[in-house]
Amino acid sequence: MSTDTKKITLLGLGAMGTAIARTWLAAGYDLTVWNRTASRAEPLAAEGATVAASAAEAVAASPLVVVCLLDDASVGEALATADLTGKDLVNITTGTPEEARGRAAWAARRGASYLDGGIMAVPPMIGVPESGAYVFYSGSGALYETHREALAVPAATRYTGEDPGSASLHDVALLSAMTGLFAGISHAFALMRDTDVPPTRFAAPLVEFLTGMTGYAHGAAAQLEAGDYTLGVTSNLAMMVQANGTLLRTAEDQGVSAELIAPFMALMERRLAEGGGAEGTTGVIDLLKR
Amino acid sequence: MSTDTKKITLLGLGAMGTAIARTWLAAGYDLTVWNRTASRAEPLAAEGATVAASAAEAVAASPLVVVCLLDDASVGEALATADLTGKDLVNITTGTPEEARGRAAWAARRGASYLDGGIMAVPPMIGVPESGAYVFYSGSGALYETHREALAVPAATRYTGEDPGSASLHDVALLSAMTGLFAGISHAFALMRDTDVPPTRFAAPLVEFLTGMTGYAHGAAAQLEAGDYTLGVTSNLAMMVQANGTLLRTAEDQGVSAELIAPFMALMERRLAEGGGAEGTTGVIDLLKR
Repeated sequence: MSTDTKKITLLGLGAMGTAIARTWLAAGYDLTVWNRTASRAEPLAAEGATVAASAAEAVAASPLVVVCLLDDASVGEALATADLTGKDLVNITTGTPEEARGRAAWAARRGASYLDGGIMAVPPMIGVPESGAYVFYSGSGALYETHREALAVPAATRYTGEDPGSASLHDVALLSAMTGLFAGISHAFALMRDTDVPPTRFAAPLVEFLTGMTGYAHGAAAQLEAGDYTLGVTSNLAMMVQANGTLLRTAEDQGVSAELIAPFMALMERRLAEGGGAEGTTGVIDLLKR
Repeated sequence: MSTDTKKITLLGLGAMGTAIARTWLAAGYDLTVWNRTASRAEPLAAEGATVAASAAEAVAASPLVVVCLLDDASVGEALATADLTGKDLVNITTGTPEEARGRAAWAARRGASYLDGGIMAVPPMIGVPESGAYVFYSGSGALYETHREALAVPAATRYTGEDPGSASLHDVALLSAMTGLFAGISHAFALMRDTDVPPTRFAAPLVEFLTGMTGYAHGAAAQLEAGDYTLGVTSNLAMMVQANGTLLRTAEDQGVSAELIAPFMALMERRLAEGGGAEGTTGVIDLLKR
């Protein structure tokens, strides 16, 4: 390993950037940091980081430049005057796939290689392998291979392809699915309110049941690839739509708003009306995007 | 075991009733069945079941009467002229908690003990212990204890309390949470459409991620019991609401309707506006039911 591959520059010392910085310092990397609010760099300086006076100076210090800022606009601002020629730029700032693609093209014009990252973790999970934290990466496969070892220090890595937007799309898709999961869990807890079942007791069967039901995604994926939404269906849409009536009446009886579960039921009914009675619920995906 | 505890009457031979009947026949129970459409009883007769000519005759045959019909109204109709005096009535027909409570009171007036059940399974899971299938039961604890062995033949049993509506409420709460989960998964697959990632490849990280995230329910339960929605928060509402912007812009860029995830985001914003910025998303439950 050359000395240079142990040199890393990190821009952005929010909670996530700071957690990541600490893992590189602990692993013996020669880390240069910069943050718009300089005081956030002080604890890291005490732990051995070099603090740069400007983003441009920080960029000049290392061949590998990692950016973890608030949003895509902050990335453009921070790097406005930096010389990116020949740099390996890794952008783990949260953003959309379109922003990642735009930033990749911008980096190319500035003479830099580009890798985009989507972090599947909250800061306390960083540097804790057993937390299951990982980062999706996409963009330059060559850059990814060159710095794979350094990138794997804060969290496991998963490369999803050359499209710079792919990592962000994976990240957003998973977080969107989580939003639905949380919505369902919230509705369930609201239903159980004012009963004599303590939430922590109800949580056990809820988590167990949902864990089993996540496998629905495998079935839906197989149906999507086969182009046959009746494949392996054990509970068809006609039956599920009837069961929805019981769910909605229960919500009403319990005084719970059905606003979080009704939209999916409405799409199930639309698909049923269009002739999908023998399918499961995979046809709903077609109604979201043809 | 007395001869009588090996006698069971089952009303209703839909897919679920038929699957359950087969497990009792296989376990050597003396089973009497009835179904409105008599032809559905024929295969079971060949397997050893006694087929009753009427629901009243079927009820008269056994001390334990299990009812698995289309809906609560069908239960009332089927049992209209039956003598329920002294019977142990177990109703595993899908219905609301209010329907279960009403049916329990109705059974008491007819001289029967009453247990209500909510089946957490589809028919192919019945009689397959490794499927994880089980039935929530609530109502008469005495009835449950008397027939526990027979009830455990088709699927594992879980008794949730004397309130006859409790089993149905647990059932509905879990299915409602599943509705949210499926909505989130559907949105995620729609986002990944028209990319070069095959659905079956994307399903793997999706299932893994959601499986880990189901534990959110344990955290929410602890917060609900503590009455402190900031307890153990690692990603606060203010940060999550900002991230929602990325999710919504990505959906728009990908041409995917956000109708399945936007309602939860709207409630997150409402809670944030009310001062919940340091909380996680548990406060949304208060907005569904105060």
